[in-house]
Amino acid sequence: MSQTLTQERDAGSSLPLLDRQQARHDYGAVRAMTETLCRPLQPEDCLLQSITETSPPKWHLAHVSWFFETFLLQEYLPAYRPFNPRFRYLFNSYYEQLDGYHPRARRGLLSRPDLDTVYRYRAWVDEHMQALIDQAEAEHWPDIALRLAIGLNHEQQHQELILTDLKHNFWVNPLLPAYREELPRSEGRAAPLDWHEYPGGVQEIGCGGDGYAFDNERPRHRVYIAPWRLASRPVINAEYLAFMDAGGYRRPELWLSDGWATVQRLGWRAPLYWLQQDGDWWQYTLGGLRPLNPDETVCHVSYYEADAFARWAGKRLPGEQEWEVAAAQRPVAGNLREAGRLHPGIATAPGLQQLYGDVWEWTSSPYTAYPGYRAPAGALGEYNGKFMCNQQVLRGGSCVTPADHVRPSYRNFFYPHDRWQFMGLRLAEDAE
Amino acid sequence: MSQTLTQERDAGSSLPLLDRQQARHDYGAVRAMTETLCRPLQPEDCLLQSITETSPPKWHLAHVSWFFETFLLQEYLPAYRPFNPRFRYLFNSYYEQLDGYHPRARRGLLSRPDLDTVYRYRAWVDEHMQALIDQAEAEHWPDIALRLAIGLNHEQQHQELILTDLKHNFWVNPLLPAYREELPRSEGRAAPLDWHEYPGGVQEIGCGGDGYAFDNERPRHRVYIAPWRLASRPVINAEYLAFMDAGGYRRPELWLSDGWATVQRLGWRAPLYWLQQDGDWWQYTLGGLRPLNPDETVCHVSYYEADAFARWAGKRLPGEQEWEVAAAQRPVAGNLREAGRLHPGIATAPGLQQLYGDVWEWTSSPYTAYPGYRAPAGALGEYNGKFMCNQQVLRGGSCVTPADHVRPSYRNFFYPHDRWQFMGLRLAEDAE
Amino acid sequence: MSQTLTQERDAGSSLPLLDRQQARHDYGAVRAMTETLCRPLQPEDCLLQSITETSPPKWHLAHVSWFFETFLLQEYLPAYRPFNPRFRYLFNSYYEQLDGYHPRARRGLLSRPDLDTVYRYRAWVDEHMQALIDQAEAEHWPDIALRLAIGLNHEQQHQELILTDLKHNFWVNPLLPAYREELPRSEGRAAPLDWHEYPGGVQEIGCGGDGYAFDNERPRHRVYIAPWRLASRPVINAEYLAFMDAGGYRRPELWLSDGWATVQRLGWRAPLYWLQQDGDWWQYTLGGLRPLNPDETVCHVSYYEADAFARWAGKRLPGEQEWEVAAAQRPVAGNLREAGRLHPGIATAPGLQQLYGDVWEWTSSPYTAYPGYRAPAGALGEYNGKFMCNQQVLRGGSCVTPADHVRPSYRNFFYPHDRWQFMGLRLAEDAE
Amino acid sequence: MSQTLTQERDAGSSLPLLDRQQARHDYGAVRAMTETLCRPLQPEDCLLQSITETSPPKWHLAHVSWFFETFLLQEYLPAYRPFNPRFRYLFNSYYEQLDGYHPRARRGLLSRPDLDTVYRYRAWVDEHMQALIDQAEAEHWPDIALRLAIGLNHEQQHQELILTDLKHNFWVNPLLPAYREELPRSEGRAAPLDWHEYPGGVQEIGCGGDGYAFDNERPRHRVYIAPWRLASRPVINAEYLAFMDAGGYRRPELWLSDGWATVQRLGWRAPLYWLQQDGDWWQYTLGGLRPLNPDETVCHVSYYEADAFARWAGKRLPGEQEWEVAAAQRPVAGNLREAGRLHPGIATAPGLQQLYGDVWEWTSSPYTAYPGYRAPAGALGEYNGKFMCNQQVLRGGSCVTPADHVRPSYRNFFYPHDRWQFMGLRLAEDAE
Repeated sequence: MSQTLTQERDAGSSLPLLDRQQARHDYGAVRAMTETLCRPLQPEDCLLQSITETSPPKWHLAHVSWFFETFLLQEYLPAYRPFNPRFRYLFNSYYEQLDGYHPRARRGLLSRPDLDTVYRYRAWVDEHMQALIDQAEAEHWPDIALRLAIGLNHEQQHQELILTDLKHNFWVNPLLPAYREELPRSEGRAAPLDWHEYPGGVQEIGCGGDGYAFDNERPRHRVYIAPWRLASRPVINAEYLAFMDAGGYRRPELWLSDGWATVQRLGWRAPLYWLQQDGDWWQYTLGGLRPLNPDETVCHVSYYEADAFARWAGKRLPGEQEWEVAAAQRPVAGNLREAGRLHPGIATAPGLQQLYGDVWEWTSSPYTAYPGYRAPAGALGEYNGKFMCNQQVLRGGSCVTPADHVRPSYRNFFYPHDRWQFMGLRLAEDAE
Repeated sequence: MSQTLTQERDAGSSLPLLDRQQARHDYGAVRAMTETLCRPLQPEDCLLQSITETSPPKWHLAHVSWFFETFLLQEYLPAYRPFNPRFRYLFNSYYEQLDGYHPRARRGLLSRPDLDTVYRYRAWVDEHMQALIDQAEAEHWPDIALRLAIGLNHEQQHQELILTDLKHNFWVNPLLPAYREELPRSEGRAAPLDWHEYPGGVQEIGCGGDGYAFDNERPRHRVYIAPWRLASRPVINAEYLAFMDAGGYRRPELWLSDGWATVQRLGWRAPLYWLQQDGDWWQYTLGGLRPLNPDETVCHVSYYEADAFARWAGKRLPGEQEWEVAAAQRPVAGNLREAGRLHPGIATAPGLQQLYGDVWEWTSSPYTAYPGYRAPAGALGEYNGKFMCNQQVLRGGSCVTPADHVRPSYRNFFYPHDRWQFMGLRLAEDAE
Repeated sequence: MSQTLTQERDAGSSLPLLDRQQARHDYGAVRAMTETLCRPLQPEDCLLQSITETSPPKWHLAHVSWFFETFLLQEYLPAYRPFNPRFRYLFNSYYEQLDGYHPRARRGLLSRPDLDTVYRYRAWVDEHMQALIDQAEAEHWPDIALRLAIGLNHEQQHQELILTDLKHNFWVNPLLPAYREELPRSEGRAAPLDWHEYPGGVQEIGCGGDGYAFDNERPRHRVYIAPWRLASRPVINAEYLAFMDAGGYRRPELWLSDGWATVQRLGWRAPLYWLQQDGDWWQYTLGGLRPLNPDETVCHVSYYEADAFARWAGKRLPGEQEWEVAAAQRPVAGNLREAGRLHPGIATAPGLQQLYGDVWEWTSSPYTAYPGYRAPAGALGEYNGKFMCNQQVLRGGSCVTPADHVRPSYRNFFYPHDRWQFMGLRLAEDAE
Repeated sequence: MSQTLTQERDAGSSLPLLDRQQARHDYGAVRAMTETLCRPLQPEDCLLQSITETSPPKWHLAHVSWFFETFLLQEYLPAYRPFNPRFRYLFNSYYEQLDGYHPRARRGLLSRPDLDTVYRYRAWVDEHMQALIDQAEAEHWPDIALRLAIGLNHEQQHQELILTDLKHNFWVNPLLPAYREELPRSEGRAAPLDWHEYPGGVQEIGCGGDGYAFDNERPRHRVYIAPWRLASRPVINAEYLAFMDAGGYRRPELWLSDGWATVQRLGWRAPLYWLQQDGDWWQYTLGGLRPLNPDETVCHVSYYEADAFARWAGKRLPGEQEWEVAAAQRPVAGNLREAGRLHPGIATAPGLQQLYGDVWEWTSSPYTAYPGYRAPAGALGEYNGKFMCNQQVLRGGSCVTPADHVRPSYRNFFYPHDRWQFMGLRLAEDAE
């Protein structure tokens, strides 16, 4: 779920470097946004970890700072003294090449450092990062600029995780607290589903040019695709309810074998965050509990559920290459975090809708390396490559993804049983 | 780990009732002490639950208030309106007869109600309890006074748990924070061990007269005991180190079968809270990490370890009746919570030492009902009786037990594998 | 579940030694009976282990031979050569002092040695045991005779386990095969329950004289007992059905806390081996599936169920000392293995019935050492002493216990959740 | 791990139908071979199931008969009476659409039906299958012939599993029994590794023509592949030992994240079936324990180990399309089951070696549906399609695969952590 900027500079790529002015600005903006997101929270909220996957906000706040400290300050700022040497262990997420890390499942047990101390840690890192940006020698600037870009994109990923994790952390509290009470709601009716057809042949996908891209989006390469059709919008709640009403969760013939075992083991009978009360369905959102809106895009379904729905519907999920070829022709815009809804909306308009934002769309593509992929050397090489097994690719960003963070070639990835991200699905079918 | 005042009133007992004046005073004192104990803590500390057994301070703060609300205010105060009706579920500990309770293992996930709200809950309950004490009709007073006594003893038990649980909750943090930095330390050398002999015969144990006693201490009854000898003091760290040096944790012949399986499964090789660094042993305390003091009473050992030590020493643990007969002749005094050490001390003087305070002493007695025991009717009957299986009795209180809470007949009980309480052992042997 | 003959010889006891003639006869008889019990089985049946607790018949056949080989042949027969040196590891049950043992849970995976080889192993041991009995030097005979008595009692215990374990091993097969089709069935109606009263005071229990007894039955010692009453017969199926009909398995107030957790976790709603089909209850027996006979003694209930039933009935379980004092006055006779039913019967007669045979009766007594108990030295000391924690005492033998194996002081012991033995309960109450 | 013949007939394919003569012959030959494979086994060996994945030989013997009974006799033979109606439940493997099945993990607990009965079951099915082949009406023959082909290929898959599962089932026995003592051993030295290069471009893979093929091999379709190189032979033990000596199992940077977690959790430090004694490596084989031969092809490694080895070697695993394009040019021949070694051999010759036989070769390709894949309707549709998640494709067959069962397009699939099949790896690299 995290990704590295390809270190293409050595390969003579045209990746444009941040200049110091821009770096100063971007750094300040991204760092400030993280704190803004945490402002509605109590100190105790910032310690919550409901399951291993959902880290506490305080841990996120510290870890992203640790990233700058570890990969920039300690490497490039002479005589830099860490804020607290123990943090190297406490706030390392999973980099095996860096002397061990606190177990992921136990992040919610770190009442100390307390929240104030973590904010002082952030200020300490910010102060030294500004010094680094100002004072770094010119010969180091290209390396620094590259790592800075990684660090900022990394912090944006954790901004998204702060919200997705918090939603689950609150969900296990019977009081069902809201992150923010006043979130705007979607209105209108979902447009009828129609289909967009694409010709087959040899196509190119992946990021090849300049601009930010993580290493797993590279290199740009050729693929052969047969002609296909893509649904005009993702599946909506009303359609998913029809699947449920048709016994979707009780019919093994609709499910992958591992999916059916998961349904049985965990007792799934609806998407995550759905509650039935007196026959009516409700949905827990970052704005609290709401009646389920049948026109909204369905969200918080696993790959297994997405796949079963598609089989029930007589369709299939798109491959990531099918999605990317279609999306590359479209502007990156939609119900992303900046829209302020923090919940999937309603695709009211005709035409291809909601490719970006609303929900990450499960694809039928297992997450693997592109042909010619090379992980970067050193600990930063662990960012993406080591996760290329057992996970599925999702595309397009969601209602909690920063708008300037996503792009056509962006590959997100989660395990087939994961549901706590803002995940949905769009149908596809063969064209001939 | 909790106990009910026998409802002996019906049986015409002479249990002296609290009068309203005394009730007002005791209630205020106990309630204030609980908050005093939490004063050194951050809001985040108050949410910690490292293992299922160790509840967060905030949960303790709320649960003891729930106890007064449920068993007194809702029963006896006309038109009482609960502070928050959801708290009936959230802060019920284990009373099955009261419409369910939040799972014990998930108490650490309740960031809401936040700490301020819990303090407001306490104030609300206090205000109404004072009203109840002032206004209750005379005919209800005996019942109210009895339940009030239970509630205050109950809150004292949770005062002890706040400290024992917190110690473990902090322990899992690699920073090993101290609850209070400035705790006083013990000095001097432990007195040599000698033996005190007691004649056998039919004896009486249990609480029979007036004064507080939980239901599990009653009725007073006869037992036959063969002559025995009791060690003058509990086992100390130096003696326990000798057991370890003799391969104690590697010699199955010293262990109960279930104990040996536990040693293997959990990898035990020293008491809980012991750390070895560069060959030296350290001990984590509520005052932080300290070098292990060989003269201090050994603490945080399980029943299995206590039993194995005794077997290695060629002795045995005392039965609870042996302990009680010996202790009944002694004043209740020692290194209890009010001593302010919050850590076991050193038995420097000759003679029978440390029967009260320092460490709860494991006995060889499984926790069972006394002959003629009857659990009270209703939900309060769940306080003690339902735990009379699979646990062992411990006696005497510890360095975190309130001094006015313990007595000769007091029976504490934990599972044989438990180590997080302040638990130690005293040796015994047959006299003939 | 196993026990050691007290090695009282050193203490000058009057334990009568087996003479060689008697030894030869007893050895032959016990060994032959074990094989007789296995005769109805297929080789594949002899490999079954449905759960960790239920060892395969083949393993029992080999282990009891290993016992003679290890504790007699290798100690006292000069130049004895083991049948197969690997068997020392494979067929050791749990003796930690003997170089390790094959994990208990994996006994069902030993297809080799095959059954024929195990019978050859038995023959080899028998041949050398006869030689040992014939040729042992007189000075060694007392030790040998003592260990031989232990070995034969040990083999009898495993005869019982062969049947109890096999019942469970077959039970998990949907075909529900019978061990023997032609088992006789009980007839008649259960006598009404009445009560037998016993005066209190200081009593003696435990085995003090000559005759076989395991170490855990000694020494004979004094106990103080308050006056009590014992039910004339164990609880029967009809009574247990009434408990079930009264919601027994759904009412937490009837259960010990650990018991209720077990009921929830395992989904218990009836005794083990009960099946409901079209509203009727059936019971799986060693003779196959039969309609539940309401007059038969209830069997295959855990301690938790026995305790909950007693609480529902307004009674309690007897202490082991109460049981023993009552039983010591009665002849050891009843529906034991030799009766050939292999299933509990019906107590049709008035008066104190079924103390011996039918079902092992749960007592309220945790399994602990008697005052003055000393485990024997060496590996044989592991026979009993190390199990004295977390288990409850059962008394009286069952329908699969050899008649000459049980006695008033005999203490069996199992965990409170165990149900696969032939276990039932008899009620008791205080007399005053 | 099982696969269905595509039902292409409806689609007008040229799949050649078995005629009755050929059907009679093939049926007899395949069925007889299964029994031949079980001949060296004891009845108890036939009940072994060491882990959930490794079914007992007896279960395999019955299940393949159940397949013919369920999908042919009950469908096409008028008035067919099942041998035992309970077998429909007992011997169904995983077909959810057929009224439930006995849990996979409990196949080793079915001592009944005993082995003789299972052989009588086989004879009963054989007799009726011969009748069906002889008497089926012509209009049904095409369907019957298709299902017969599936059933025979299915039985061949289980022939392979009988050997792979048995190897593991024996392995957990400390006696390490051999399946057959007299297996021939390989000789000679492994040829040096060299590389075979292939041009990139649009290629076709999958089975398109007549001849047997499972549904997951179809349809034949185009893929784009960049130029690549394939190693001349799989990795050998000597090379794998070098990886181990270089700290392969201790260096997280070499491993996929899930792989490293698996190494830690299971304590892997060598391939399955390797044992180190006094510094020397031994390997358990179907012929018993042997010294490790450094020239033999490495076997019983997981995908995680294969991937880590490749990363350490600076190479990668081939994609399944790369493997298939290379293999399609080669005859299907090699160290397959008929060679009688039942163990991987030594690639002594230069040139592309061991594509078929010796070891199944892990590919970098997750097991997914080919474009245009449709699972057959009904329960037979569960054969392959529902497993297309979380598994990796392996190619080429092994030393226990029937020679007439494998082909260039054959796709085997296992979880990345599986090691009990005869699995190895061949390296690949990019060509430009």
